Amino acid sequence: MKWLPAVTLLLFVSAAQANQEKPKNVIMVVGDGMGPAYTTAYRYFADKKTSPEIESTVFDRHLVGMASTYPARVSGYVTDSAAGATALSAGVKSYNGAIAVDENKQSVKTVLEQARINGLKTGVAVTSQINHATPAAFSAHNESRRNYNAIADSYFDDKVNDQFALDVMLGGGWKYFIRDDRNIVDEFKAAGYQYVDDLAQLSKLKPGPVIGLFGDEGMPWALDMPGKQRLPVLVETAVKQLTNDKGYFLLVEGSQVDWAGHANDIAAAMTEMHDLALTLEWLEQYVQENPDTLVVVTADHSTGGFSIAANGDYQWDPEPLKNLTQSLTTLAKLMTSSDSPLTLAQTTLGFELTETEKSLLQSVDMNNQKALYVQLKKLLDIRSNSGWTSSGHTAVDVQIFAMGAGKERFVGHMDNTEIPKIIFELMQSQ
Amino acid sequence: MKWLPAVTLLLFVSAAQANQEKPKNVIMVVGDGMGPAYTTAYRYFADKKTSPEIESTVFDRHLVGMASTYPARVSGYVTDSAAGATALSAGVKSYNGAIAVDENKQSVKTVLEQARINGLKTGVAVTSQINHATPAAFSAHNESRRNYNAIADSYFDDKVNDQFALDVMLGGGWKYFIRDDRNIVDEFKAAGYQYVDDLAQLSKLKPGPVIGLFGDEGMPWALDMPGKQRLPVLVETAVKQLTNDKGYFLLVEGSQVDWAGHANDIAAAMTEMHDLALTLEWLEQYVQENPDTLVVVTADHSTGGFSIAANGDYQWDPEPLKNLTQSLTTLAKLMTSSDSPLTLAQTTLGFELTETEKSLLQSVDMNNQKALYVQLKKLLDIRSNSGWTSSGHTAVDVQIFAMGAGKERFVGHMDNTEIPKIIFELMQSQ
Repeated sequence: MKWLPAVTLLLFVSAAQANQEKPKNVIMVVGDGMGPAYTTAYRYFADKKTSPEIESTVFDRHLVGMASTYPARVSGYVTDSAAGATALSAGVKSYNGAIAVDENKQSVKTVLEQARINGLKTGVAVTSQINHATPAAFSAHNESRRNYNAIADSYFDDKVNDQFALDVMLGGGWKYFIRDDRNIVDEFKAAGYQYVDDLAQLSKLKPGPVIGLFGDEGMPWALDMPGKQRLPVLVETAVKQLTNDKGYFLLVEGSQVDWAGHANDIAAAMTEMHDLALTLEWLEQYVQENPDTLVVVTADHSTGGFSIAANGDYQWDPEPLKNLTQSLTTLAKLMTSSDSPLTLAQTTLGFELTETEKSLLQSVDMNNQKALYVQLKKLLDIRSNSGWTSSGHTAVDVQIFAMGAGKERFVGHMDNTEIPKIIFELMQSQ
Repeated sequence: MKWLPAVTLLLFVSAAQANQEKPKNVIMVVGDGMGPAYTTAYRYFADKKTSPEIESTVFDRHLVGMASTYPARVSGYVTDSAAGATALSAGVKSYNGAIAVDENKQSVKTVLEQARINGLKTGVAVTSQINHATPAAFSAHNESRRNYNAIADSYFDDKVNDQFALDVMLGGGWKYFIRDDRNIVDEFKAAGYQYVDDLAQLSKLKPGPVIGLFGDEGMPWALDMPGKQRLPVLVETAVKQLTNDKGYFLLVEGSQVDWAGHANDIAAAMTEMHDLALTLEWLEQYVQENPDTLVVVTADHSTGGFSIAANGDYQWDPEPLKNLTQSLTTLAKLMTSSDSPLTLAQTTLGFELTETEKSLLQSVDMNNQKALYVQLKKLLDIRSNSGWTSSGHTAVDVQIFAMGAGKERFVGHMDNTEIPKIIFELMQSQ
């Protein structure tokens, strides 16, 4: 029998806890626009109706809390993605549109920059352009998210700790990084970065910094990618490129959950959620093998006022959303040049259209892509009984999910600004 | 310095934890229809715009997790209040409409009945009729929530452990308990229960069982009560009447959050939330003074597809909801018999109507109460920028809040059936 003074044992327990809390690597994941209705709906979208039980999702397994998302008082209670990302990157409430600047337009330090200062490697892996509001608010500073070119410039021009802000940049953005007035990709290449513009090239990267751009603005919808996914390979690659003895900070964004919400496109919304869920399942496995890594997942806000059921009817049916072979955006485009657009719609949607549904599509000019897209969305809203109230954001609290070292710090309700404050603290204790 | 064997200390800690977990009293609180958008909106409704900070609410202080709410597979993914309450009372998924019976219409034991079997006192305090779906699914068994009279009968006729199911019944329900064919109130009086039908009488009750009914069906809207509240006094009274050496189980329901959601009435929704929040603030204090009490708060589902902001506009303004002196239901009724209905509307709403708002009200028959109610709700939706998608329920996960002994058992995501399963466990360990 070993005898210890009581106080020693308590110190021992407490030191073990503190040690467990110190993450070597930090991965922040933002599901842009992913309010609680999205993670819930995804459970039912992913449910195999043939099994008696409804399977839990990766979100269910790691829920720890919820966060309020309101911006600085000047912008009311409903945040945009820039103020939301500034809250999450720097722990500072700012006005809607702010990219890591405070209400007085002064730059505020982000957790990604703190990681850089601490000597860690840093990266972003997103499905939007890499200079879009969320990644930008971790990696740059600007008074307006709309200054896309200036933000792209700053990725090369502005240094943190005498280095570029980012070792790894994966996402979209040709339009902003390869311009008539400036080719930032060439500048990064000259500075030693590898450049890739095709996902197939990701497996062939050598160790070292990389910029990978896979779209003019954002990447294509997950529905238009082989296997209906693309974020997992970005994140696997980013983690591989960033791994080093001192650790890394990686910002991941499932950017287009939000875009599907803005469009009120339930098929895109569920597939973007699937792309993000596959990414989190990979990270779940990664954290098991690398328990010194902290993964914190949250959203900046919810989008579209999406509801699971609508119109007084107590049912929601995800089945018609499961067999699409292309996005509704692409389908609408292809329908305008098709000789048999309704047949094409049936093949692409994966179910037979009723007479009412055919009439719904035929009620608009079959050469009008935008009008067709609207009708296709309406068709799936009716089939699934999905509801929407807005083309913009809503203020409902969002969830926090956490895995790995320090995850217990995120339990309960907190304001979104608390999340980076805890990460700053955990990084200081390294 | 005190020296202990290491193992003793660990046993000591673990015994202390187990002890801390054993609640003497259990209070379950259901915010009917209270999805995450309601608790979030309530924070902004309660926010004092004159202070720089947005104050946290009682919900924020006690959030511990979230729960899925889907009913038995036969009813799809969207629950009604009966299946939701059966999940919460018995830990059993059933069909929509089921009152503490399983899919085969067999009775299932509820946590309230288990408390009774364990020799505890039991009660319900709700703002609906006391035989409405939620309280009924804790205290009775029926194949359909619609059998209101049969459920009321069973409160007197069916015994648990040779006793009535409930020592304390507070809420509405004259219509069902004082009928032409049967006067259940008189029967309870003959059996030794005190009967009150006015809130003012609550303070004069003697110790012992009580039935208090304060409305024909549900109680009036909180907006139509003095002080815009009535649940706190019901709960204070219930706790006082139930307190005894062996402990008690109390089911509390903020029933009319759901009714406001069904009506898409944002003013009623926020005031019902306030009534519930005041109740929880009282319970927060009570648990501090009685740490052997467990309070678990959740919702059965969300209602109305309510969104905080709508129509593409990034703002939500609760100010026009704060100064109402009566419910919109009552205002609409009074307007039909008023000589100057617009002046009455201005006085009751607490703000001056714009010309557009006056036209909105005048666009319907000013003698049509129902049409006026619809216009008044629309007016406040536009002023506040609130969105709705349904007159029914939606399937978004709901929050779990917990205080007191055993609260740590409810951390994270769980299915709603897990909540009573944990309570059964905690009660067994007593």
